[in-house]
Amino acid sequence: MTTTARRGRRPGAPDTRAAILAAARERFAEAGFGATSIRAVAADAGVDPALVHHYFGSKRDLFVASLALPVDPRDVLAPVIAQGMDGAGERILGTLLAVWDDPDRRLPLLAVARSLLDPSGHRLFQDGFLAAVLVPVLTELGIDRVEHRAPLLASQVAGLILMRYVLEVEPLASMPADDVVSVMGPTIQLYLTGPLP
Amino acid sequence: MTTTARRGRRPGAPDTRAAILAAARERFAEAGFGATSIRAVAADAGVDPALVHHYFGSKRDLFVASLALPVDPRDVLAPVIAQGMDGAGERILGTLLAVWDDPDRRLPLLAVARSLLDPSGHRLFQDGFLAAVLVPVLTELGIDRVEHRAPLLASQVAGLILMRYVLEVEPLASMPADDVVSVMGPTIQLYLTGPLP
Repeated sequence: MTTTARRGRRPGAPDTRAAILAAARERFAEAGFGATSIRAVAADAGVDPALVHHYFGSKRDLFVASLALPVDPRDVLAPVIAQGMDGAGERILGTLLAVWDDPDRRLPLLAVARSLLDPSGHRLFQDGFLAAVLVPVLTELGIDRVEHRAPLLASQVAGLILMRYVLEVEPLASMPADDVVSVMGPTIQLYLTGPLP
Repeated sequence: MTTTARRGRRPGAPDTRAAILAAARERFAEAGFGATSIRAVAADAGVDPALVHHYFGSKRDLFVASLALPVDPRDVLAPVIAQGMDGAGERILGTLLAVWDDPDRRLPLLAVARSLLDPSGHRLFQDGFLAAVLVPVLTELGIDRVEHRAPLLASQVAGLILMRYVLEVEPLASMPADDVVSVMGPTIQLYLTGPLP
């Protein structure tokens, strides 16, 4: 159960992945997604950049992995995207609720939400979650002006998560997912496809 | 600049107000709005309940004072209510943005937002801000099923505050208030007057 602190390259060591993830989390939080390089993360973790790519793929994959989400939002949203824009708001919301309503995923998701709300995590949201996760998903949906629409969509989704899961405000906290979708789906659809100033 | 710690009744003492507010803040945060009595707050502060009423009025007034908001939301929303339901969503949002966009009020409001987001403040939101501030305002507007509509409205408003003022996500953070109203006003109006499950 005890581990010895080790330094330097450990390409095959079982804790290399963990070291890379820890270095990535720190870099992304400090510098944001855009200004963080795989090379810098690799240097911080004391490994070769090729190993980072080998374990995690692209920088975006590494970012998603560093968030320690219980699901990859891109995988979950792929079927939503495949069905096109019609009713996409309702489908995005339904998918989100299915993930959050799963008791096994709730606690890890709450931990991510709290880390993004913490002042140290603000960059991770703005120049990370939005830029590296939400904007690409919306772009794949083929919608226009994604940079304007992503924060609007995020505002309603974040507010819902805050009320339903963090503050557990009734009756929203106990409302069946289908009812939440019927009430808030039109809002998400409006932000995806409605007029912008 | 130094003060001496004093105990017991100090009806005329200049720090009596502060002692009452501190006791109120603690009680409301621990027990919520409903289960907190003026009597208990008075006992905690070491004063007569009549003095609490004298200084702060009703329990709801005491609660709003204990939030240390730079404005009383009920005063600010009174003109919105007076103009009736038509366009109320846009007017509520416009009023909220005018208050938050004022640089003198921004920091105190952010402090309140952070205190409500802190786990110790969760009750203050649910069984406090919603029950004692938002629900009465919506009731005065004459809308139906206020207990269902208040959390929906709060979800979009809280998400907007989070994105625009806490995380400062662009382009939402720098968007002119009128543009935010035109984009999100229909959402607020929908939650105030639209169909519910």
